[in-house]
Amino acid sequence: MTKKLFAEFFGTFWLVFGGCGSAVFAAGVPDIGIGLLGVSLAFGLTVLTMAYAVGHISGGHFNPAVSIGLYIGGRFSARDLVPYIISQLFGAIAAAGCLYTILNGATAFVAYGPGAFATNFYEMPGYYERSYSVGAAFLTEFLLTTFFLIIILGATDKWANGKFAGLSIGLALTLIHLISIPITNTSVNPARSTSQALFVGGAALSQLWLFWVAPILGAIAGSAIYKYLLKKEHN
Amino acid sequence: MTKKLFAEFFGTFWLVFGGCGSAVFAAGVPDIGIGLLGVSLAFGLTVLTMAYAVGHISGGHFNPAVSIGLYIGGRFSARDLVPYIISQLFGAIAAAGCLYTILNGATAFVAYGPGAFATNFYEMPGYYERSYSVGAAFLTEFLLTTFFLIIILGATDKWANGKFAGLSIGLALTLIHLISIPITNTSVNPARSTSQALFVGGAALSQLWLFWVAPILGAIAGSAIYKYLLKKEHN
Amino acid sequence: MTKKLFAEFFGTFWLVFGGCGSAVFAAGVPDIGIGLLGVSLAFGLTVLTMAYAVGHISGGHFNPAVSIGLYIGGRFSARDLVPYIISQLFGAIAAAGCLYTILNGATAFVAYGPGAFATNFYEMPGYYERSYSVGAAFLTEFLLTTFFLIIILGATDKWANGKFAGLSIGLALTLIHLISIPITNTSVNPARSTSQALFVGGAALSQLWLFWVAPILGAIAGSAIYKYLLKKEHN
Amino acid sequence: MTKKLFAEFFGTFWLVFGGCGSAVFAAGVPDIGIGLLGVSLAFGLTVLTMAYAVGHISGGHFNPAVSIGLYIGGRFSARDLVPYIISQLFGAIAAAGCLYTILNGATAFVAYGPGAFATNFYEMPGYYERSYSVGAAFLTEFLLTTFFLIIILGATDKWANGKFAGLSIGLALTLIHLISIPITNTSVNPARSTSQALFVGGAALSQLWLFWVAPILGAIAGSAIYKYLLKKEHN
Repeated sequence: MTKKLFAEFFGTFWLVFGGCGSAVFAAGVPDIGIGLLGVSLAFGLTVLTMAYAVGHISGGHFNPAVSIGLYIGGRFSARDLVPYIISQLFGAIAAAGCLYTILNGATAFVAYGPGAFATNFYEMPGYYERSYSVGAAFLTEFLLTTFFLIIILGATDKWANGKFAGLSIGLALTLIHLISIPITNTSVNPARSTSQALFVGGAALSQLWLFWVAPILGAIAGSAIYKYLLKKEHN
Repeated sequence: MTKKLFAEFFGTFWLVFGGCGSAVFAAGVPDIGIGLLGVSLAFGLTVLTMAYAVGHISGGHFNPAVSIGLYIGGRFSARDLVPYIISQLFGAIAAAGCLYTILNGATAFVAYGPGAFATNFYEMPGYYERSYSVGAAFLTEFLLTTFFLIIILGATDKWANGKFAGLSIGLALTLIHLISIPITNTSVNPARSTSQALFVGGAALSQLWLFWVAPILGAIAGSAIYKYLLKKEHN
Repeated sequence: MTKKLFAEFFGTFWLVFGGCGSAVFAAGVPDIGIGLLGVSLAFGLTVLTMAYAVGHISGGHFNPAVSIGLYIGGRFSARDLVPYIISQLFGAIAAAGCLYTILNGATAFVAYGPGAFATNFYEMPGYYERSYSVGAAFLTEFLLTTFFLIIILGATDKWANGKFAGLSIGLALTLIHLISIPITNTSVNPARSTSQALFVGGAALSQLWLFWVAPILGAIAGSAIYKYLLKKEHN
Repeated sequence: MTKKLFAEFFGTFWLVFGGCGSAVFAAGVPDIGIGLLGVSLAFGLTVLTMAYAVGHISGGHFNPAVSIGLYIGGRFSARDLVPYIISQLFGAIAAAGCLYTILNGATAFVAYGPGAFATNFYEMPGYYERSYSVGAAFLTEFLLTTFFLIIILGATDKWANGKFAGLSIGLALTLIHLISIPITNTSVNPARSTSQALFVGGAALSQLWLFWVAPILGAIAGSAIYKYLLKKEHN
């Protein structure tokens, strides 16, 4: 059990360090920066690389909403749920601390509310092109986590081509970011939202509720859809 | 059979929500947006992720032209053709409805003819760099769907390295978009064209015929080419 | 044998239509175009997708230099060499003809020497940032084809993880383009250079010799390196 | 043994020629260049392609820090350590020599300190957006190599899905570059840093110590973490 929790700790550390780190350090470099496409790829690759590295140890969740969805889908035991989520939160917060340390090595840490330090947000005028309402943000996070869980449960189904699950699930997270960074900075992962909000505070913290509620409800919906509408019987 | 139709419904929903959604929300963000490369990647990843998730349930068509091509190629039964296409259309329209709802949560829904809301088009001056004639648009959609079906039938041939089919077919859709977004906004999929045109109306609807006729004829041509010119005998 | 030649015809058609097509149609769209990164990805994906589709039919060369290298490496028979190369040339020229037709459907065909219509070149001031000498262009094409053949022979070695060969070889072509588009527009493939030069003429034709000689010498070098310095014995 | 050393020579040559070459030739082409995202992809693809090509010969290290980490992790013999590292250095330097030759075929070789010719650096004001302190650079290189080794040891563990190791490890290097090019130009590989510094001299050479010390310490840390905290017992 300890090894599983270490695997979730390091996996979620890598997700936040790599995903949010690429956003903070490299997205906005003028003219040649990696942009939203590079950040989307980075988030997906954190999951792809760690899924093949420690997936055989812990299952490779790295996300409280995924752990809850897998429990609903009958693939994960209730007993392990809280320890997994705590490990994920510790991993995310440790990674955010490292990002904070490296940034302070560059310039003063800039904390100007939602959006900064790769925090998630809604109703934020001016950070990207448009500002989306809380309802639009909620629907987006809900739907994306719904499909994330359909993809996870489908790709790891015993009838599926399971060796590609790490590739497919990692690239699903890339796709999710390609769609929604301009809407919420993309969460679908309460641990990743929490770690960044803790270091920024203010509006990032007061908006944090949405990035727990919408992904978890989406994960429950996706797991239920897969279980009841899609899953093939064992004939 | 119901599970197959749900799989096609959710798969086509994801194709439209992810592909058209990335275009609508994220392509044009100034300086750091995902651009046409990001949209191309997004379309491909919708198919890649859903092929590994529900391909073992429905075969993973998500596209009326593909279903028709697979029928011509002898891989799909005539009996299932109409139900599959109806499920695909419902999935696409439901996704477009969600995109519409999220956009209305941001700013007024902008509908200014072909090109808006990721609709397909031809002879559209000024949307991208150049305007292509109806003949050029038809030839492009026809050829791209021809090769899409050659790739699908080849990658899923029993002599081929079938576990990579989802990867290869998904990335083929990415490649198709890399080539042709500036020409027609890229269809090769009548369901994806129909859902977007229904919400925009006007020229998008009056041009919709091309995005049914050219992809379906291309799919028939590609399937015939694979069956008669390429397919190895069972020696 | 006929089916193998059709496979090489359609595979090389796709390489030129997809690779050069993405460059001609989509690379330069202002602000959101796919750029050199998108073109690099497109070239690689043409090979990746066709390798999994028709690789089991013809071996998936799509390139005269590759056919010659595989012959040197002992993986391809002398008897098939000329028919393969002729099929590849016909496929490339047919694809360039389609690109030409689609472009003429848009605006007048622009032929202003090397670089236009995705032709290869050397010593071209001003097309990209810098102009490279004929020696630099030759060395670049030679070295890149050398490594392309090492990768091809290695990935398809019977001791290697052969199911990933199509992925690895396709992405090798992407990598080759990421390095060298600004130097020569990247050939490593005499068929792809010939088809584009035939439609443009002028300097593109008079410089064509380099894009036959350097890739073929590189392919011979790479095959010899793999065979004599790298290949494991059958112990 | 000779074949293993040739494999490491050519693999590290390709890593430097492809990774640093894409940066030097193609990253900064105005408007349509490949940018930091393209360079990140290029570095990863050098490892992905060579891992599938010669991984069955030498194991595919191409990096002194990786060889040392694999020795700590119990996967590589002490006896081979020095020959491997020497081959890697020779391969990297030979590649840098080829890049130098090609560049001289274009314009005069530009050597203006760290950052030029894809050298690694720290505390460099103005090259990218911000300047990072030596501590921030050290922490970044240390952490990224730590996770690189966790991913390598995990993906090649006998309990893991080993056929995807080349894909996962190559894309891990892409991810590492997506995060850290603006901080140090990304090393995690002393051979790659040494070859570039030798041709540029000055500050690039005097800062070279960090790109040996931090990656090697990180590799040792990552291997120890995998061995003692993550690795499953053989039950």
